[in-house]
Amino acid sequence: MSLLVLGTVAFDTIETPFGKADRIIGGAGTYVALASSHFYNDIKLVSVIGDDFPSEELTELQKRGVNLDGLEIRKGEKSFFWAGRYHNNMNSRDTLATELNVLENYSPILPESAKNVDYLMLGNFAPAVQKSVLDQLTSRPKLVVMDTMNFWMDIAMEELKSVVKDVDVLTINDEEARQLSGEYSLVKAAQVILQMGPTHLIIKKGEHGALLFHQEGMFYVPALPLEEVFDPTGAGDSFAGGFIGFLAKTDDFSFENMKRALVFGSVVASFCVEEFGPNNLKIIDEEAIRSRTDEFLNLMDISMTVTI
Amino acid sequence: MSLLVLGTVAFDTIETPFGKADRIIGGAGTYVALASSHFYNDIKLVSVIGDDFPSEELTELQKRGVNLDGLEIRKGEKSFFWAGRYHNNMNSRDTLATELNVLENYSPILPESAKNVDYLMLGNFAPAVQKSVLDQLTSRPKLVVMDTMNFWMDIAMEELKSVVKDVDVLTINDEEARQLSGEYSLVKAAQVILQMGPTHLIIKKGEHGALLFHQEGMFYVPALPLEEVFDPTGAGDSFAGGFIGFLAKTDDFSFENMKRALVFGSVVASFCVEEFGPNNLKIIDEEAIRSRTDEFLNLMDISMTVTI
Repeated sequence: MSLLVLGTVAFDTIETPFGKADRIIGGAGTYVALASSHFYNDIKLVSVIGDDFPSEELTELQKRGVNLDGLEIRKGEKSFFWAGRYHNNMNSRDTLATELNVLENYSPILPESAKNVDYLMLGNFAPAVQKSVLDQLTSRPKLVVMDTMNFWMDIAMEELKSVVKDVDVLTINDEEARQLSGEYSLVKAAQVILQMGPTHLIIKKGEHGALLFHQEGMFYVPALPLEEVFDPTGAGDSFAGGFIGFLAKTDDFSFENMKRALVFGSVVASFCVEEFGPNNLKIIDEEAIRSRTDEFLNLMDISMTVTI
Repeated sequence: MSLLVLGTVAFDTIETPFGKADRIIGGAGTYVALASSHFYNDIKLVSVIGDDFPSEELTELQKRGVNLDGLEIRKGEKSFFWAGRYHNNMNSRDTLATELNVLENYSPILPESAKNVDYLMLGNFAPAVQKSVLDQLTSRPKLVVMDTMNFWMDIAMEELKSVVKDVDVLTINDEEARQLSGEYSLVKAAQVILQMGPTHLIIKKGEHGALLFHQEGMFYVPALPLEEVFDPTGAGDSFAGGFIGFLAKTDDFSFENMKRALVFGSVVASFCVEEFGPNNLKIIDEEAIRSRTDEFLNLMDISMTVTI
């Protein structure tokens, strides 16, 4: 019944209008694993790091139920490093540095124990790496969720599409949905993308929430308006982690339950952005998640009959 | 029990990536009146036009229950004219021409029959004009809704604030909420603005929906993702018209009913943007509104108990 998570494990240096965090841990795999661990605790992480990665961070992941047998640690090499600066509106950012390091020639090798899992999260990574994980599985998971980004659409669109063909849920942002589909209207974009393979498309709109498209209908979850947003880094990955963590916990892929998973993904993402890096994801507990989920449900709560 | 609507009645020339509409009727007053007429039919419009305005458009308004005793028609003068061009993303536009014409020295004069109304919509206009309408009322309406925009914040902030002080509901967009409050976070902006006078603040986010802030809580209504958006002109005014029209019809200003009004405002706005100008607002019927409201409720529908 395991959840396999592919995603980078890295160092980030982040500047926002509210301050700077230097070489904190980050990476899609880290955020997804931490976020999903609040719902599910049989998680296997597949990724690569150098020997510069702090062991206490690895211990923290293990304590949260994250198995690291698939985490390759390369001696004498350095972990992936990214540095970025957010603009005042926090919706856009400049990349200041990208050091691929261990990622340069990474080809994931799944341990035997990770080849037969029920749930798979293909976090943002080169499509070839995502495909390699899919190819090593001995059986098809019940649910495969894939995240990706415009960078891979620019340089590896065909490989990316060949991965998209094999997944159940694709999570991308609005601009990426337009790029992938060639359609400006998100409704039309979704129609095109749902013909490419996935049965579900999630379009992430950052501070404006997220849309779920499925043959059965559309669902919108808002982002919770927050007093303070310190650092948007990892919000999308936290969203994906909360989403698939809840689905793994409930093992129910109905449209109704997908909608609930979208809410829990948004709840976890809302915590993530309130602190630098993934710090909040380590601190929050069940009570915090319950209370914030109530806030979301209040925000969306409407009781009306359609009479005019 | 009348609804008094202040707003411009004008000609617009609109260019979008989908085409051009030349000198069609527009103006906040037109959109608000047409939108609210789907819910309520004791509407009084106060505005000014020249003698160049097509009489059939006035007849159309009258047929929809809009009393024009407060519509000043100036002989030998021209109606307000605006021309604009939308960018490809439809979220921003350039103003190509603004001819104030009759607006240049307009000072509204309310007919006696319009001085004692239950509901007042102060559509986007110079704050001095909005204030003049408030000052001519012989009794305080049960509900006053005000719309305004950044242009007036730039050139007449103090006058604008003195009107804001006297209204129940203020509708502005996210950037305007930031400008008015001096706060970037919309939650903090709302806290500041709700100290300025209004009991309710609606922050319009265009294609991303709208937020209602009130002492009792927050509510979010999404915009309906549409296959085609032809022309965003008048969406905010249509929203305001549907909102106050429903409140006038139901005469219930509870938070729960305000939320419903927000949904109906969004429903009417979603029709508006599907055609050039206010054309769709004349065509839609009760069945269309009911059916689209169902689409909104499906988009927002979630059934969950918070257990993790």
